[in-house]
Amino acid sequence: MKRLLTILTLWILLPAAAAAGEPRAHIDEGGAKWVAAFNAGDAAALAGLYTEDAVVYPPGGGPVDGRSAIQAFWQGAIDSGMKVDDLHAIEVEARGDMAGEIGVLTLTVPGDAGPTKVSGKYIVIWKRVGGTWQLHRDIWNTN
Amino acid sequence: MKRLLTILTLWILLPAAAAAGEPRAHIDEGGAKWVAAFNAGDAAALAGLYTEDAVVYPPGGGPVDGRSAIQAFWQGAIDSGMKVDDLHAIEVEARGDMAGEIGVLTLTVPGDAGPTKVSGKYIVIWKRVGGTWQLHRDIWNTN
Repeated sequence: MKRLLTILTLWILLPAAAAAGEPRAHIDEGGAKWVAAFNAGDAAALAGLYTEDAVVYPPGGGPVDGRSAIQAFWQGAIDSGMKVDDLHAIEVEARGDMAGEIGVLTLTVPGDAGPTKVSGKYIVIWKRVGGTWQLHRDIWNTN
Repeated sequence: MKRLLTILTLWILLPAAAAAGEPRAHIDEGGAKWVAAFNAGDAAALAGLYTEDAVVYPPGGGPVDGRSAIQAFWQGAIDSGMKVDDLHAIEVEARGDMAGEIGVLTLTVPGDAGPTKVSGKYIVIWKRVGGTWQLHRDIWNTN
């Protein structure tokens, strides 16, 4: 009976654990793709890293709702001449198909008096959709 | 055998579901307590709503790390004369002992030319610690 219970417990719990994979590695990889797409000026690739119904919450503006609005938003940031020097997770905690990422970023922002460095931090809530971790909710601010 | 399997499955899964409770209701209640404590000028009560190792990520400054630093941070905001007109969740998604909350806020901020209304949005990652949902990571920005 005890052995049966152990087998059944594993049978029920193991597939969920296996499906969870290694969220941190996938999220770090997603962050690296995000930076590469941004600095390559590829807003479509950037938007493709988000869920279809993702929402971005930028400072200085209202929510940006859905993948196509997100593409247009990041196209604007790319067109402004901004570059991402660094953006990386400092903490990832996942539960099932959801993860919370805390990260830090450094940008180079062009201006009339020349480019300035801006640092900040962000929280992204990721969702695993069809086996792929995607950005689902994205907010940040600057220091 | 099938019946035994059903019973064992329920026996394994139900306690976890029950322990999860109703995160949205607890988080809404936590948000209401947050606003009440802020507007009452009670930074200690405010800090008590956070986990011991919580981090707050305010715009215009670096991370505020741990409950006592968070108390001092909010004391500063209270002392500035700021008031919270409204702060509430628009979305809560929980998985086990972790939840992600998206919310909106409206503040009245004092200034030389009189008070101004400021609106914004936030993401809070909540943790359930010893049966109580507490703010664990907290970031916001203004529109």
